[in-house]
Amino acid sequence: MGLVVQKFGGSSVADVEKIKNVARKAIREKEQGHEVVVVLSAMGKTTDQLISMAHKITLDPSPREMDMLMSTGEQVSIAMLAIAIHSMGHKAISFTGPQVGIITDTAHRKARIKSINTKKIRKALEDGNIVIVAGFQGTTEENDITTLGRGGSDLTGVALAASLKADVCDIYTDVDGVYTADPRIVPRARKLEKISYDEMLELASLGAKVLHSRSVEMGKNYNVVIHVRSSFTDVPGTLVLKEDKSMEDIVVSGVAYNRNEAKISIVGVPDRPGMAAEVFSRISDAHIVVDMIIQNIGEEGKNDITFTVSKEDFRQTLQIAKDLCRELGADEVMSDDKIAKVSVVGVGMKTHCGVAAKMFKALAKNGINIEMISTSEIKISCVIRESDMDKAVQAIHDELKLEANTA
Amino acid sequence: MGLVVQKFGGSSVADVEKIKNVARKAIREKEQGHEVVVVLSAMGKTTDQLISMAHKITLDPSPREMDMLMSTGEQVSIAMLAIAIHSMGHKAISFTGPQVGIITDTAHRKARIKSINTKKIRKALEDGNIVIVAGFQGTTEENDITTLGRGGSDLTGVALAASLKADVCDIYTDVDGVYTADPRIVPRARKLEKISYDEMLELASLGAKVLHSRSVEMGKNYNVVIHVRSSFTDVPGTLVLKEDKSMEDIVVSGVAYNRNEAKISIVGVPDRPGMAAEVFSRISDAHIVVDMIIQNIGEEGKNDITFTVSKEDFRQTLQIAKDLCRELGADEVMSDDKIAKVSVVGVGMKTHCGVAAKMFKALAKNGINIEMISTSEIKISCVIRESDMDKAVQAIHDELKLEANTA
Repeated sequence: MGLVVQKFGGSSVADVEKIKNVARKAIREKEQGHEVVVVLSAMGKTTDQLISMAHKITLDPSPREMDMLMSTGEQVSIAMLAIAIHSMGHKAISFTGPQVGIITDTAHRKARIKSINTKKIRKALEDGNIVIVAGFQGTTEENDITTLGRGGSDLTGVALAASLKADVCDIYTDVDGVYTADPRIVPRARKLEKISYDEMLELASLGAKVLHSRSVEMGKNYNVVIHVRSSFTDVPGTLVLKEDKSMEDIVVSGVAYNRNEAKISIVGVPDRPGMAAEVFSRISDAHIVVDMIIQNIGEEGKNDITFTVSKEDFRQTLQIAKDLCRELGADEVMSDDKIAKVSVVGVGMKTHCGVAAKMFKALAKNGINIEMISTSEIKISCVIRESDMDKAVQAIHDELKLEANTA
Repeated sequence: MGLVVQKFGGSSVADVEKIKNVARKAIREKEQGHEVVVVLSAMGKTTDQLISMAHKITLDPSPREMDMLMSTGEQVSIAMLAIAIHSMGHKAISFTGPQVGIITDTAHRKARIKSINTKKIRKALEDGNIVIVAGFQGTTEENDITTLGRGGSDLTGVALAASLKADVCDIYTDVDGVYTADPRIVPRARKLEKISYDEMLELASLGAKVLHSRSVEMGKNYNVVIHVRSSFTDVPGTLVLKEDKSMEDIVVSGVAYNRNEAKISIVGVPDRPGMAAEVFSRISDAHIVVDMIIQNIGEEGKNDITFTVSKEDFRQTLQIAKDLCRELGADEVMSDDKIAKVSVVGVGMKTHCGVAAKMFKALAKNGINIEMISTSEIKISCVIRESDMDKAVQAIHDELKLEANTA
């Protein structure tokens, strides 16, 4: 007998029928002899609706009060699921994040979990209940309600799985696993049976929206096996787990993309120590996250500093770059928000060579110009024209022969 | 400087504009130098919507989970109001019932308040906040969320006013006070400036829906001045407070009615000791509340026992009465659910006589037959045909000369 944490997202609990479907999944797991903890998001678009109601009053509401407001969404879901499970003749009990002792820091709307007291859950499981916990929320030590920010319900699921030493954390979502590429772009993309935490982290941060990177990090830190699978079918999904030997034989796990970046270059920065530090600390002070950074030596011993930020931060970053350009005595600022990033990820790349060459060849054969290149141990990313993106993903996927074996 | 508790019902916070209106009322009170605690119900029809969503799954949901579900309604309201007050440049902080230490027993959906820890509210008031508390909800000592049942938000308001020793508990509602009769039936009914707890209790239990009797009882027990007033105008409403000498001069405070009763008679019950006890303990065991009881000696020394229950309990009570009739060897059961009850209430009736006579005369003059009569120290109630009710209320109001002085 094991312990399974099941997490269902908003689309999986969007209405009463879907909640009943979740109830059946939880009961089936219980009937197979497992202890079951279910973590839920708010129903459908509830969170967005609550936010937009608050925005009718002000676009800058207090984060504490927004947490008070938004945390009601998950509370509705958990009560509804408990009622549904009862109506099917099984024992269940629901708990809010605060009730279950999910203690966070005081950073409202993006709180970090500090500790979880599993006593109440253990007790309820021992009493034979399916235990239902509200995702996305916790409480400060002062008893203020907090929310965990983006991907918060996944995080609750993985954190509970870690605290309870669960055998697996099932993340039920509207896709049935992690693919070698986005199937909407590459129809013959193949579903991966398993993937390492590090690869998943690269894919998550690269824009594969299956699983938020905070959850993968927590899974990695506490060695939680995460099973990404579909709410609507019963086929196995993709296991995210510790890297093992067998994974190294698979050189490349997938091709990811991100349309949501923009590029800024500060051209002709005088070559003095501390210039890069000055640039990126100023941007960081504005709470803007920089993704790729490239520094080249330009003309007359001056440097060109190029970096990418998300499209939302583009305007603000551009202004900062222009201020910096003037202050540092650089020549000019160039910018471009019509870019996209394609990346190849795979732990096997640590021990296999030639992947970069194949990727560049695929792009070249299709007449796609590479504007920036960045690499890590298990990843190669190229910035290209946004309009070339779909073609690039398909071409790289073909060149690396990632397509479904059944095809 | 005083301390004011303001309670607003669901219709007063039904949408964003109305919430802003509440914010302005709270701020105005604060600006007049008072400390302000605001208690809110759920927005508009939210509670009903949550209940009907649960009923899509089962008509018999777990009370604990219903409390988990319903308590979200007030949590939304309090966050919205805090956001609205902030947007107007004032300090405010919201708390759920559990956060503010409203400890109840474990009777889910109809919990009773056991204690309130005012420390958190005191601290927030000292910090200059308008303190906003979710009505209708509390927590058991085991940290389960409870709700207080019908009139629960009023009860939260009065209980907080008692605990905080507030100067007044303003109950804002969609009527502007307590009238000598329902103005929809008696257009010239007069608004009362003040009324005693006992009179209000009679009126509340008689179906004047202004204030629930549990709140009035608590107000009476802790001597809280309750001000029933309109959310939508600024005119003074009606004060509910301790009976004083001046009140006794006012013989009758009002005429109340209740359409929601049904009458059952067990005819020809053998005249042995313990018969009435047997009848009413059986009904009470089924958790049915009996209102009026009349026992007459009928034919051959047998008794007729007649009583009224609410229309919801009519079918079930009728079955119990039929069982009892057979078991006790009574003659037959008669029933009637087309009745109504009209009542006259006034503390002055303790010291003045002739009210009953005037009431009966008003009914007689209008050809209205009286089917049952019941009296207390400050009340006379008559059961009549439901179809005669409006006419009866108007006639009694006229006969007792309760109409507005300005008319």
